[in-house]
Amino acid sequence: MSEYRAFNNISSYWMEGKGSDSDIVISSRVRLARNSPEYPFPDHMTLQQERDFLNRVQAIPKTKAGNHLEDLEFIDLSLIPKEEKMVLVEKHQISPQLALSQGATGILINAAETLSVMINEEDHIRIQSIYPGLSVDQCWEKAAAADEMISRYVPPAFSPKWGYLTSCPTNTGTGMRASVMLHLPALVYTKQAKNTLDSLGKYGFTCRGLYGEGTDGKGNLFQISNQITMGLSEQEIIEGLNGIVGEIVAKEREMRKRLLERDRIFLEDRVFRAEAVLKNARLLDSNEGFTLLSALRLGSDLKLVQGYSAKEFNQLLLLMQPVILEKMNRKKLTRNEMMKCRADLIRNKLTGGDRL
Amino acid sequence: MSEYRAFNNISSYWMEGKGSDSDIVISSRVRLARNSPEYPFPDHMTLQQERDFLNRVQAIPKTKAGNHLEDLEFIDLSLIPKEEKMVLVEKHQISPQLALSQGATGILINAAETLSVMINEEDHIRIQSIYPGLSVDQCWEKAAAADEMISRYVPPAFSPKWGYLTSCPTNTGTGMRASVMLHLPALVYTKQAKNTLDSLGKYGFTCRGLYGEGTDGKGNLFQISNQITMGLSEQEIIEGLNGIVGEIVAKEREMRKRLLERDRIFLEDRVFRAEAVLKNARLLDSNEGFTLLSALRLGSDLKLVQGYSAKEFNQLLLLMQPVILEKMNRKKLTRNEMMKCRADLIRNKLTGGDRL
Repeated sequence: MSEYRAFNNISSYWMEGKGSDSDIVISSRVRLARNSPEYPFPDHMTLQQERDFLNRVQAIPKTKAGNHLEDLEFIDLSLIPKEEKMVLVEKHQISPQLALSQGATGILINAAETLSVMINEEDHIRIQSIYPGLSVDQCWEKAAAADEMISRYVPPAFSPKWGYLTSCPTNTGTGMRASVMLHLPALVYTKQAKNTLDSLGKYGFTCRGLYGEGTDGKGNLFQISNQITMGLSEQEIIEGLNGIVGEIVAKEREMRKRLLERDRIFLEDRVFRAEAVLKNARLLDSNEGFTLLSALRLGSDLKLVQGYSAKEFNQLLLLMQPVILEKMNRKKLTRNEMMKCRADLIRNKLTGGDRL
Repeated sequence: MSEYRAFNNISSYWMEGKGSDSDIVISSRVRLARNSPEYPFPDHMTLQQERDFLNRVQAIPKTKAGNHLEDLEFIDLSLIPKEEKMVLVEKHQISPQLALSQGATGILINAAETLSVMINEEDHIRIQSIYPGLSVDQCWEKAAAADEMISRYVPPAFSPKWGYLTSCPTNTGTGMRASVMLHLPALVYTKQAKNTLDSLGKYGFTCRGLYGEGTDGKGNLFQISNQITMGLSEQEIIEGLNGIVGEIVAKEREMRKRLLERDRIFLEDRVFRAEAVLKNARLLDSNEGFTLLSALRLGSDLKLVQGYSAKEFNQLLLLMQPVILEKMNRKKLTRNEMMKCRADLIRNKLTGGDRL
């Protein structure tokens, strides 16, 4: 098992459950796509070019100016087994594509895991910043500072007409993807989620699940991000996102209030059942885990149950993932063993035997 | 609300959870169909004839010899609202047909509810005896004694060739239906129930659910009874039933042992989840109630959970029925109110606030 900090740290700062509207907004993220004009885009690079570029970026934190990039740790992902790389995927620090890549890829990541730089993914460089709560501005500030520093050593391909050039044209322009992860159980329970989220498209935003497209609504978690990267400034995109998220948050709060007032017994039934099952099940699959943790988290937000923290829920969502369960158990697990480990983990954490 | 004992007594002796093999055999029952040659069968009787016959049978407990029939209470069912009659159906003391009948019908029933006599149901007289555990012989003894007494006053239609004549030819002969109610969760969990119970036909026995045909397996409860009433003596039928039930009970025990040895985690998961949900749900429908109580009862039988009694489970199966819930709440309930009352009842009983 690798000794890199990022593989052994089970907590990222974005899981702290802090920040603005943190009862609904789990985390915010800004990602910047950058490429060097000195190389072809990654899908056309030779292994030698990849290695060469990786070495250049790897060296940046050791430079004098690069020290401002904090305590960045470099990980040469080509030396890491796929199973271990999946830990970073489950922590939302790298994409599944990067974990599966056969090339010379790497990541720079700080101790708090609020800043990371993927190297030779779809673009040469992808700078990512994640913070808890509604904090897109903070993410942008962090990512922009890293961008400025890195661009001194690896000047980006930039066209006055098109903006930042990217491997996929959908990212060209700002090269920015700003997103927030929202927990919207009340919108789902009251069947308002689909309508609310389907209308995002016309404002230039899109909705995906916790682990990307096709996972919408797992654990009632939805990721809202900008679809448009060209023709708007970074500030305009961020303002637009903050505005639309503010509306969704208000609607979720309204539905939570309505549930409490009109369907309290239905809500209590969901919440108390979820708590009971999480504290007593001996086998738990991932989907049920997501569903029950969502209900319990809502109950905690609405003070129907006591003694839980947002951090605890965020960490459980992470820890119950397959690869991390295997890492904690230091072996491959069968499906049944996985269900048992997941149930044991959550039961022990929630019943206080092993409180986070 | 009627003041008759049978409507207000929420416990019948058969629910005591006593007797042979009472971890698997909930109760035993013998029913005897008898008719008077002086009247047409009930479906051809005039209301005057029904009333006349009802009066004759009603008078029997007041006779000197009839005193041996214990503390029988007579209820003129034509004076009782349908909703109230359903209480007796849910207590397995009268058939749904009798509750729905528009005619002059009645019942004699003792305080322990181990003996009852339905009047003007499908047959003029149906004598029924129910005891807890595997106790078909005891039921037969009780029913036969009542039969002997009643036949002094209302001699039965009997043909030396055909035996007791009945309204439906499937009952002709002994007029006897002997049955046992079995709790077979391990056979169900290990998918052995269907095979085991489907084979009963060739031995002249049949399987139905707790509330008759079409309810097979609700709460993993199965009622085994003789199909053949002619060509065998009562003793032969009872011996046959005792034999076949002994085999099913042995198989259920074997599967319980196998589950404990080979699938303990699966079993624990079911049992602990059931206990958790029953103690915490705020809404509970009847089917889920049956399923969860069955799992918890199995867990109690296997000592995976402590502090429950068979009597408690039997009473909850009864009390959570719709009509009895309405009776306890003294009003008609909507579907949601019913689910809430059921959840409240079970939660309060099991968490000790209102221990039976």
